[in-house]
Amino acid sequence: MTQPSSLSSGGRFSEPTDAFVEAFTASVSFDQRLYRQDIQGSIAHASMLAEVGVLSSDERDAIIQGLTEIREEIEKGHFTWSVSQEDVHMNIEAALTAKIGITGKKLHTGRSRNDQVATDIRLYLRDEIDVIAAELTRLQQGLIDLASREADTIMPGFTHLQTAQPVTFGHHLLAWNEMLQRDYERLMDTRKRVNLSPLGAAALAGTTYPIDRAMTARLLGFERPTENSLDSVSDRDFAIEFCSFASLLLMHLSRMSEELILWTSAQFNFIDLPDRFCTGSSIMPQKKNPDVPELVRGKSGRVYGHLMSLLTLMKSQPLAYNKDNQEDKEPLFDTLDTVQGCLRAFADMVPALEPKREAMREAARRGFATATDLADYLVRKGLPFRDAHEVVGQSVAYGVAEGKDLSEMSLGELQQFSASISEDVFEVLTLEGSVAARDHLGGTAPGQVRAAAERARLHLQSRG
Amino acid sequence: MTQPSSLSSGGRFSEPTDAFVEAFTASVSFDQRLYRQDIQGSIAHASMLAEVGVLSSDERDAIIQGLTEIREEIEKGHFTWSVSQEDVHMNIEAALTAKIGITGKKLHTGRSRNDQVATDIRLYLRDEIDVIAAELTRLQQGLIDLASREADTIMPGFTHLQTAQPVTFGHHLLAWNEMLQRDYERLMDTRKRVNLSPLGAAALAGTTYPIDRAMTARLLGFERPTENSLDSVSDRDFAIEFCSFASLLLMHLSRMSEELILWTSAQFNFIDLPDRFCTGSSIMPQKKNPDVPELVRGKSGRVYGHLMSLLTLMKSQPLAYNKDNQEDKEPLFDTLDTVQGCLRAFADMVPALEPKREAMREAARRGFATATDLADYLVRKGLPFRDAHEVVGQSVAYGVAEGKDLSEMSLGELQQFSASISEDVFEVLTLEGSVAARDHLGGTAPGQVRAAAERARLHLQSRG
Amino acid sequence: MTQPSSLSSGGRFSEPTDAFVEAFTASVSFDQRLYRQDIQGSIAHASMLAEVGVLSSDERDAIIQGLTEIREEIEKGHFTWSVSQEDVHMNIEAALTAKIGITGKKLHTGRSRNDQVATDIRLYLRDEIDVIAAELTRLQQGLIDLASREADTIMPGFTHLQTAQPVTFGHHLLAWNEMLQRDYERLMDTRKRVNLSPLGAAALAGTTYPIDRAMTARLLGFERPTENSLDSVSDRDFAIEFCSFASLLLMHLSRMSEELILWTSAQFNFIDLPDRFCTGSSIMPQKKNPDVPELVRGKSGRVYGHLMSLLTLMKSQPLAYNKDNQEDKEPLFDTLDTVQGCLRAFADMVPALEPKREAMREAARRGFATATDLADYLVRKGLPFRDAHEVVGQSVAYGVAEGKDLSEMSLGELQQFSASISEDVFEVLTLEGSVAARDHLGGTAPGQVRAAAERARLHLQSRG
Amino acid sequence: MTQPSSLSSGGRFSEPTDAFVEAFTASVSFDQRLYRQDIQGSIAHASMLAEVGVLSSDERDAIIQGLTEIREEIEKGHFTWSVSQEDVHMNIEAALTAKIGITGKKLHTGRSRNDQVATDIRLYLRDEIDVIAAELTRLQQGLIDLASREADTIMPGFTHLQTAQPVTFGHHLLAWNEMLQRDYERLMDTRKRVNLSPLGAAALAGTTYPIDRAMTARLLGFERPTENSLDSVSDRDFAIEFCSFASLLLMHLSRMSEELILWTSAQFNFIDLPDRFCTGSSIMPQKKNPDVPELVRGKSGRVYGHLMSLLTLMKSQPLAYNKDNQEDKEPLFDTLDTVQGCLRAFADMVPALEPKREAMREAARRGFATATDLADYLVRKGLPFRDAHEVVGQSVAYGVAEGKDLSEMSLGELQQFSASISEDVFEVLTLEGSVAARDHLGGTAPGQVRAAAERARLHLQSRG
Repeated sequence: MTQPSSLSSGGRFSEPTDAFVEAFTASVSFDQRLYRQDIQGSIAHASMLAEVGVLSSDERDAIIQGLTEIREEIEKGHFTWSVSQEDVHMNIEAALTAKIGITGKKLHTGRSRNDQVATDIRLYLRDEIDVIAAELTRLQQGLIDLASREADTIMPGFTHLQTAQPVTFGHHLLAWNEMLQRDYERLMDTRKRVNLSPLGAAALAGTTYPIDRAMTARLLGFERPTENSLDSVSDRDFAIEFCSFASLLLMHLSRMSEELILWTSAQFNFIDLPDRFCTGSSIMPQKKNPDVPELVRGKSGRVYGHLMSLLTLMKSQPLAYNKDNQEDKEPLFDTLDTVQGCLRAFADMVPALEPKREAMREAARRGFATATDLADYLVRKGLPFRDAHEVVGQSVAYGVAEGKDLSEMSLGELQQFSASISEDVFEVLTLEGSVAARDHLGGTAPGQVRAAAERARLHLQSRG
Repeated sequence: MTQPSSLSSGGRFSEPTDAFVEAFTASVSFDQRLYRQDIQGSIAHASMLAEVGVLSSDERDAIIQGLTEIREEIEKGHFTWSVSQEDVHMNIEAALTAKIGITGKKLHTGRSRNDQVATDIRLYLRDEIDVIAAELTRLQQGLIDLASREADTIMPGFTHLQTAQPVTFGHHLLAWNEMLQRDYERLMDTRKRVNLSPLGAAALAGTTYPIDRAMTARLLGFERPTENSLDSVSDRDFAIEFCSFASLLLMHLSRMSEELILWTSAQFNFIDLPDRFCTGSSIMPQKKNPDVPELVRGKSGRVYGHLMSLLTLMKSQPLAYNKDNQEDKEPLFDTLDTVQGCLRAFADMVPALEPKREAMREAARRGFATATDLADYLVRKGLPFRDAHEVVGQSVAYGVAEGKDLSEMSLGELQQFSASISEDVFEVLTLEGSVAARDHLGGTAPGQVRAAAERARLHLQSRG
Repeated sequence: MTQPSSLSSGGRFSEPTDAFVEAFTASVSFDQRLYRQDIQGSIAHASMLAEVGVLSSDERDAIIQGLTEIREEIEKGHFTWSVSQEDVHMNIEAALTAKIGITGKKLHTGRSRNDQVATDIRLYLRDEIDVIAAELTRLQQGLIDLASREADTIMPGFTHLQTAQPVTFGHHLLAWNEMLQRDYERLMDTRKRVNLSPLGAAALAGTTYPIDRAMTARLLGFERPTENSLDSVSDRDFAIEFCSFASLLLMHLSRMSEELILWTSAQFNFIDLPDRFCTGSSIMPQKKNPDVPELVRGKSGRVYGHLMSLLTLMKSQPLAYNKDNQEDKEPLFDTLDTVQGCLRAFADMVPALEPKREAMREAARRGFATATDLADYLVRKGLPFRDAHEVVGQSVAYGVAEGKDLSEMSLGELQQFSASISEDVFEVLTLEGSVAARDHLGGTAPGQVRAAAERARLHLQSRG
Repeated sequence: MTQPSSLSSGGRFSEPTDAFVEAFTASVSFDQRLYRQDIQGSIAHASMLAEVGVLSSDERDAIIQGLTEIREEIEKGHFTWSVSQEDVHMNIEAALTAKIGITGKKLHTGRSRNDQVATDIRLYLRDEIDVIAAELTRLQQGLIDLASREADTIMPGFTHLQTAQPVTFGHHLLAWNEMLQRDYERLMDTRKRVNLSPLGAAALAGTTYPIDRAMTARLLGFERPTENSLDSVSDRDFAIEFCSFASLLLMHLSRMSEELILWTSAQFNFIDLPDRFCTGSSIMPQKKNPDVPELVRGKSGRVYGHLMSLLTLMKSQPLAYNKDNQEDKEPLFDTLDTVQGCLRAFADMVPALEPKREAMREAARRGFATATDLADYLVRKGLPFRDAHEVVGQSVAYGVAEGKDLSEMSLGELQQFSASISEDVFEVLTLEGSVAARDHLGGTAPGQVRAAAERARLHLQSRG
C-alpha cells in the first residue's frame, strides 16, 4: 500500500509516506521544467563553495561535470523523472550522486530546497520575461507599421458603441499601442524585482557556512542578493506582480479581440481576417470564425484566475516557507504559456489585418458623426457650447425623422435650427474636415497620427 | 509554414489554417479525457437516428461497432490523437470513418459539435459528481465516527484565537461535519441542473431532421431534454455552479487544514498526525511537516481562481456559442481533480488523527475558559448580565496579575468582587461542569454531541 | 487622544480603546440596516426567555414595548447611532436600557452577539431574497410576453458573432428566460440554507440557560434550528452561496446587456431602446447611449468582486468567530442592492424593447444563413453530411466572390456544385422555411417557440 | 413618474429619463469626493483657454472666481448635490452657470466629461498615493526601530509552522520591512503611470479648438500629456495597477496580522498587544481580542475583490468610453480608504508591540531548533550532508521518545548516533551560537540584523 519516499524513510520517521500522499504532494510533474535553472543555480553554488573552501576544486569540477551531463540527458529525453524523489531538485541531486558518488551529496551544503527553489523560479521567470518582452515589441512594431499606413483611413469612433466622431484607423491602432506600451513598462518594473538572488537564505535563517552571496548573485546575472533570509524563502510577490502585469495585458488583448470580433461581423464589416487565422464550422459550411481573437478574449479569464489563485494562496500565511507555496508554480507557468501564445498569435495576426476602407468610411458618413463639429462651428459663431449642443440635438432629431445625415441636409434645412449657420458649414461637416481639425498632440488629425507613430517607432528602437 | 487542417481545407477557405494557429486553437490535448462520454453520446445519437429512420439499422450497428472498437483502442493506449483534427470529437469521427467508411460520415447528421460538446461535458461532470459525492460521504463518516469517540474530550473553544469556553473535541468535529453536509446538499442541487440533455440543439437553432430528443435524453440517463437550443449550446452556468460548490468546499477544507496545522504545532500540540501524512525537510533533520493540510489549504486558491476564470470567461458573451468557451474545460477539469485529491487525502487522514487529550484539557484549564460560567452563576444569583460581566472582568484582571485561573482562587479571593459568590461556585468553574451545562440542541454537552453524531450518522445512511 | 468604549472600559481592560481604533473597528455605519431584524430577533428571544422562566412576563413585556418604541424612533429618523457603541446590537441594547432600566440588561441573557448577528443577517437576507424572487419573476414575465409576441420575427442567429442560421426573436428571448429560470432555482436552493436559526448558539458553545431553540426558530419563521453551535457562529457560507447566485445572475444580465448594446448600435440596428432608458452626451449632441445595459454589464464586475472578497475572507479562518467576519456585511449588502437595482432596471426595460423587424429580417437574409439548410437538403438527396458540407462551402465561396446569397443564385449556378440540386431547393433556402423546419422540442420553429412560451408562463404561475 | 434630467431633456430626446433610471445611472453620490480635483482641473482648463484666446481674461477670471466660491461652499457643507445633475461635473457646472451666467457654459469648450473625469481621477489618485506613501514610510520606520531594539531577541523561526531554527525577533521584523519596501517601490512605479494628463482628449478624438495640452499638464503638476485621445478616455489600467499594488500590500499585512494573532494566543504568547488595540466580548468577560490584526486580515478580501471587480469591468470593452466605466470609482475609492485605514492602524500599533522575550526564548529552546546546527557540525567533522541529516534525524527521534531536546542530552547519548561527536558540540547547540553562526548578508546573526536595520534606515531617509 505504501512505498518509502526518500526524505521520510530514515531518522525521524517511523513509517513511510503513504503512496497516494506521496503522489498528491509531489511536484516533479510540473516543476521539472525548471531543470535548466536548477542546474544553473547548482553550478553557481558549487563554484562559490569551492571559492570559499567548502568544496575542493576537484569536487567542484566533478559536480559541474555531472550536472552538465544530466542537463544533456534531460534535453535528449534520456532522463527518468521519479515521483518518489518528489521534485526537480531531489531528482537531479539523486542522479548526481548516482553518477559521481558521495561528492554529489556535498552539493547541498550551505543551502536548502527553500532558497534553491526561490532561485530557480526567479531565474526561470527572468528568462521568460525576456522572451515576452521581445514578442511584445514585435506586436507593437506591427501595430505602429499598420498605423502609419492607415493614418488617413477614416472610420467611426465610438463611445457607448454608438457612432461618436470620425477618427482614423491609424489613430485607433495607436490607442492599442499605448496600452501595450504601458504593459511593457510594467513588465520591466517587474523584472527589476524578479532579478535578485535569494540563494544563501538557506532554509530560513541563513547558513553557518562562510558563503559568498554576492558571488552567486553575480554568477547568475542577478542584480544583487536579497536582504533578508526569512523573506527570501517565503516571498512570492514577484510572481503575483507578474500575474498582475499579465492580467492587464490580457485585459488589453481582450479589448482588441472584442473589436476585431465586432469588425469581422457582417454588421460592422470593417476588416478582413486572413483565412489562416480563422476556422470553419462542422455543420455550417458558410462560417468563417475569428477563432484567434475569440480564444484570446477567453484566455483573459484564465489569467485573471491565476492572479486570484496566487493572491489567495499567500493570504495570511505565516512566515517562513509553507507547503502551500508549492501551489505557486502551475498558475505562474500557465500564465507564462498563455501570455506567450496570445502575444505570438497577435504579433502574427496584426500585420495581416486587411481594413475595408470603403465600409469604414461609409459607416462614419452615417450616424451624425460630425454633430460635434457642427456644435463647435456654432460656438465659433458665438453661441455658448451648451446652447450649440441644443441646436445640434434638434437638427439630429430632424435627421433621424427624415432619414438624412447632417451633411445631406440643405442649408435651408439647417438654418431652421439656427440662423447662425451659413454656407461654410459644409466644410466642417465633411469627414476629412472633421478629423483634420483635431490637430493637437494626441488628436486624430492624420498629421498627428503620423507624428505619433514616428515617436512610438523611435521609442521601440531605444529598447535595445 | 502552414499545414492544412481538416475543416478549413475545402469549400469556403482559400488558405489553410496557420500551423501555430492550429496548435493554439486545438483542444484535443485536454478534451480527449471526454472520449468515453463522447462515444456514449454518439451511440445514443446513432440509436435515435435509426429509430426515426435517418439511419438504417445496419448503419447504426456499424457505427456502434466502430465506436466500441475505438473506445477499446483508446483505453488500451493504441489510439493516436492528432492536433490537426482539433478536438476529441473530430478525432473520433475521423477514426470512425477510416474504420467503417462513408457511413461514419453520417453519424454527424442532425447534430453539431456545439450540442455534442455540451452533452459530453454534462455527462462527464455528472459522473465525476457521483465520485465526489461518495468521497465526501466517506470523509463525513470518518468525522462522525471520530466525533462519537471524542464526545467527552475537553479542549478549549476559541474565538479570535483566544480561549473562549471549553468545548468537546467531538463537538468541534461535528462543526466540520455541518460544513461538509451543506456542501453535499449544494452538490446535489448542482447535479439536478447538470443532468439535462442538450443533444438536439444542434449548432444553435435545432435541426431539420425528425430527431427524438426525449429518446436520447433517456438513453443517456438525463432527467429530460433542455428547453431552448440557443441556451443549450451557449450556457456554461452548470460548470460555474460546480466551481462555486468546489470553492465553498475548499474554503471549508482550508479552515480544517488551518486548524490541523495549528494543532500539530509545538505551541498547540493538540493532535498527532501520523508520519505517513507528513514529510521531512532536506536540511532540518528534526522536521515533521503537516504537508497534506498545508497543500489542501493552498489548493483553495487554485479552485477560487478557476471559479473566477469561468465567471470572467462568460462575462458579456453574446449568444450563442463563441470560441471563448473552449476555455471552459481546463478550469473545470482541474477543479474536479483538485476536489477529488483533497477529499481523498482528508478522508484517509481524518480517521488517523490522534488527539492528545491531556494537552487539550490542560489548554482548556488555563485561560479563564469558565469565566462565562461564573457570569451565568452570578446572574442566577440575581445580578443583571452586564453587571455580572463586570464582576468577572475584575476577577480575571486579578487572576492575570496573580497568575491564577478562576478555579484556583479561594472563596475569599472571589468574594472580593461580589458578595453573591458562595461555596457552590466551584462546581460551575470545573471544565466538566461547564460543558455539561450547555445541554440543549446544538450545545457542547457530551450527551448532545453523542445525539448529534447519531442524527448525522442516520442522515448519511439515508443517502442511499 | 482616546475615549472609552463601552465594552473595554471596565473589568479586564486597563486602558480604553484608541479613538481611531474604535472607529476603524466599529460596524454601526453599515450594520444599522439590520435594525429591524435585530429587534425582531430580540423580541423572539425575550418571548422565549419568559416562556422558560428566565424572564418574568412583566420583564418580557417591558422589553418588547421598549424595542417597539426604538424601532419606531429609528424609522422616524429620531434615533442617534453612536460609534462608541460599536454596532447595531449594542446601540439598540443601550437605548433599551436607557429607556426601561435594569431589565434592559437582562435581554442579553442566554445569547451572545455572535449568535445574534448570525440570526439578524439570516433574517435580513431571507427578506431580501423574497424581494429579489418577485423582481426576477416580473422580469421573466416580461420576457415571456415579448417572446410570445415575437415568435414569428426572424433574425439572424449568431455563433462567433458570425451569421449562423435564422432564428426567431422570440426564440432568442426564451434563451434568456432559461438562464433566469436556472438563476431562480438556485436562489430558492440558497433560501433553504439561509432559513435556519442559529439563535441559541450563544458565543460558540451554547448556553447554560434552559433555552428553547425550537421556539425562537418558530417565532422567527425559520425552518428549524441549526445543528452545531460552533458552526452556527462561524459559518458564512450561506452569504457566499448567495453571492455565487448573484454572480451567475449578473453574468447572465451582462450577456443580455452585451446583446442589447450590439443591437442598438448603428451597425446592428435590431432594436430601439426608449429614450427614458438612455442618456445623451455632454459634448456630442447626436448621441443616445444605452446607459442602462452598459451599467448593468459593468456591475457584473462589482458582484464578482464581492464573491471573491467573501471567499478570501473565509479562507483558512480557524473556528469559531473571528473579527474578520465583520467584513462579511458590506459585500453582501452591496450585492443585494446591485441585484435589486439591475433586476428592476431590466424588468422595466424589457417590455419596452422595440424590435426593428425589417432590419432583423434583412440581416438574416444576407450572410448565407440558410447554408446548413442547403447541406441538409443535399443529405436528404443522398450525400453524406461531410460531403454536403463541402459542396455548400464551395457555393458560399462562389457567393462571396459574386456578391450573391444562396437564395439569389440561379438553379444553374447552384448545380455547378452538385447535380443533386433541383428546383425544390428554393423552398429550403427561404428564411421561413428554414426556421419552420427546426420543429422539435427546443427548436426555433414558431410553433415550438409559442409552446415553449406557454410552458414557461405556466411555470411562473406555479410559483405561488 | 419621471422627471426630466438635464442632458436628455432637449434636442435629440423625445421623453425624459425615467426617474429610477436617473437614480440608477447617477454617480454624484460617490463621485462628489472628486470635487476638489474637478475644480482644480477646470481652473487649469479655463486658464489655458484664455491663454490660447478661446476665453477672454475676464471670462477666465469670472470662471475661476466662481469655481473658488463653489469649492468653499462644498467644504463648508453649503452645497446641494443634485441627482438630476448626474455627477460631480454637471453639478459644479450648473452651479457655476447659476452663479456667473452664460460664461459658465463656456467652460466646457474644448473638453468633454470623458477627459474631464479621467483627469479628475488621476489627480485624486495621485494625491492619495502621496498620503499612502507617507503612511507606509511611517510604518516602515516603526518596524526598523523595533527591529534594531530586538536584534538580539531569540525566537523560534518556523517553516510549516513547525519549529525550524532559532532566529532573532529583529530579523523577523526586517522580513516584514522587506515586503513593505517592495510595496513602496511598486507604489512609486504606479505613480509614474498615474501622473500623466489626459486633458484635451475631449470626447474621444481630440478637439477642434487650439488647445495647449502641455500647458494644462504643467499647471496640474502632471509629468506630460498622454499620447492618444482614444486611449486617454477609455484606459483605466492605472486604477487597476493601483489595486494590484493594494492587493499585494494587504496580502503582506494579512500575513503580519496572522502572525500577530498567533503570537497573542495563549499557546504562542510571544507578544502583548496593548489594550487600546483590542476589544472585549459582550459575553465572555475574560476575552481580549486582537481586533485590529483580525480586521486587517479580513480586509485583504475586500481589496482583492475590488481588483477582480475592475479587471472584470474592463474585460473585452471596445473603445472608447463606455458607461460601464462609471463603475471604476467605488472600488478604487474603497481601496484607497481601506489601504489608508490599515496602514494607519499598523503604523500606530507596531511601535507598541511588547515582545515577551522569555516566552520566545523558551519556545526556541524546545523543538530541536538547533538540529541543523548539529548536522552542519557533523559536516565540518567530515560527514556528507545527507548522512549528517540521517544521524541527526535519529537523534531527534530518540529525543522525542525520551522527552529531551538535543542540548539536554549527554555526550554519551549523542555519541550513540555518531562517533564524530565530541565535547565541542555543545557550543553549536546553544541558541546564541546558532544565530551568531548565520553571519552573512541576509542571515539572522545579531550583527547582520543591526547592519540590515541601519541600511534600511538610510534607505528611508533617502526618500525625501
